[in-house]
Amino acid sequence: MPLQVGVIGSGDCYEDVCEIAERVGELLAERKCVIINGGLFGVMEAVSRGAKRKGGFVVGIVPGKSKEEANKYCDIVIATNMGHARNMIIVHSSDVLIAIGGGYGTISEMAIALKEGKRVVGIKTPVKLPGLIEAKTAEEAVDIALGKS
Amino acid sequence: MPLQVGVIGSGDCYEDVCEIAERVGELLAERKCVIINGGLFGVMEAVSRGAKRKGGFVVGIVPGKSKEEANKYCDIVIATNMGHARNMIIVHSSDVLIAIGGGYGTISEMAIALKEGKRVVGIKTPVKLPGLIEAKTAEEAVDIALGKS
Amino acid sequence: MPLQVGVIGSGDCYEDVCEIAERVGELLAERKCVIINGGLFGVMEAVSRGAKRKGGFVVGIVPGKSKEEANKYCDIVIATNMGHARNMIIVHSSDVLIAIGGGYGTISEMAIALKEGKRVVGIKTPVKLPGLIEAKTAEEAVDIALGKS
Amino acid sequence: MPLQVGVIGSGDCYEDVCEIAERVGELLAERKCVIINGGLFGVMEAVSRGAKRKGGFVVGIVPGKSKEEANKYCDIVIATNMGHARNMIIVHSSDVLIAIGGGYGTISEMAIALKEGKRVVGIKTPVKLPGLIEAKTAEEAVDIALGKS
Repeated sequence: MPLQVGVIGSGDCYEDVCEIAERVGELLAERKCVIINGGLFGVMEAVSRGAKRKGGFVVGIVPGKSKEEANKYCDIVIATNMGHARNMIIVHSSDVLIAIGGGYGTISEMAIALKEGKRVVGIKTPVKLPGLIEAKTAEEAVDIALGKS
Repeated sequence: MPLQVGVIGSGDCYEDVCEIAERVGELLAERKCVIINGGLFGVMEAVSRGAKRKGGFVVGIVPGKSKEEANKYCDIVIATNMGHARNMIIVHSSDVLIAIGGGYGTISEMAIALKEGKRVVGIKTPVKLPGLIEAKTAEEAVDIALGKS
Repeated sequence: MPLQVGVIGSGDCYEDVCEIAERVGELLAERKCVIINGGLFGVMEAVSRGAKRKGGFVVGIVPGKSKEEANKYCDIVIATNMGHARNMIIVHSSDVLIAIGGGYGTISEMAIALKEGKRVVGIKTPVKLPGLIEAKTAEEAVDIALGKS
Repeated sequence: MPLQVGVIGSGDCYEDVCEIAERVGELLAERKCVIINGGLFGVMEAVSRGAKRKGGFVVGIVPGKSKEEANKYCDIVIATNMGHARNMIIVHSSDVLIAIGGGYGTISEMAIALKEGKRVVGIKTPVKLPGLIEAKTAEEAVDIALGKS
């Protein structure tokens, strides 16, 4: 089974953060990882668009009860109807996580992932949690996430 | 995006029920549906084994926090750490559902799926809920689920 | 700590079912039980109204994210934002359950409670699940639930 | 209905943090607030012990499936069987929150509470999230939480 990499970030994002997210998506697709994310917009959509450009596979775990809520780049949509609690499902379903930018929701995901002892790599994250590994570029983040550095 | 078909049933099953589950898995794979199920054993494993034999795709949504909990036929594992509440996620993530045999957990899934207005086809289910469409064979169940009859 | 008794049933109910629910609420209050329910209307409101008339205590576990969603007879409101998954929380939080009438949601609760090995007493329930203990009156249901018969 | 105040913090705590938590519990009880917390140990137990000393009322929302998991100061136990996702239920069920010390779990709760637009007062919290209101003492935290300053 391929590695399931959670890529988390907020539902709206500035251009520079979106570019990084797209690049992370491309790189993970090239390395045959499945991307797990929140299925909505902003960083979630950008990473998925990047992944699909390179033939990757994306699972969107959405907060609402309808699959229709997801962006168009998801191969599979998991509809939880659990609001923010779906963040915990993203964490548990990911072997390793990359956080890009992000707001409060991303902070909640990073915190629980770190509590669960998972590797979490952050690019331009709003807060620096203990245990979070910081990266400067998409390439560096993916390398660290996949254990290549 | 392919149709996501929930195939639900209990974690242990008699041989005749397992055979039906495997056949349902084969048929859904041949029709290019993604199978959503609980990722564990019994009916869940049988349908997945059938699907994989025909090149299908299986998403296992498990109750615990570890992907390791899933059977070996899952392409993607969603780890919820939510126990029985993961049944609701299976329902919301499925466009249509097929119940095969089943115990209390399956009853909870059928009930919520029917409450949500989803089509639910049952083979050898332990109770007959109002709105449940009964089928006698794997072929009939898949035909009804996919709207061919 | 007092016994936490789950009283489950649908969000709308006929007069006869509502009368039974109110009576169950009164009896549980007289016996110093805390009532756990879904916090909304129909059976949930009726049992709570009965309980409050006799000085009882009611916890409403609602499906949405706002406490405002609850009926006015709740002493405590737990807002889950988890839709039908809140049914599972009602089950786990109840030492014993009484089902009155009920629709699909109630069936899902009865099924999971029985799966968890809890005592479930049903009055006028729409389906008869294996293990469900049937009662004819509020008095009988409360007696059985509390182990007096 | 009384105000439901979430008091969050980690499952183990140093003596100084525990003393603050107990004092917060006392003050909230004196002001007739219901305390919502995670039902386990450390800060959760300390605040509950303080509250009970002053005749307060405590609801413990535990991560596991058993009420037995809770500390002995809970008046009501809500058993979620949802692990970290129970943190979100604590947030949604609280009108306002006070964070005392805390680890990753507390961070996840603060983040989601702030995302939901709730007032969150922190004493000795490990990270400073945007929007978090800092307090130095139990008295100050309770005053701010209840809108007295």
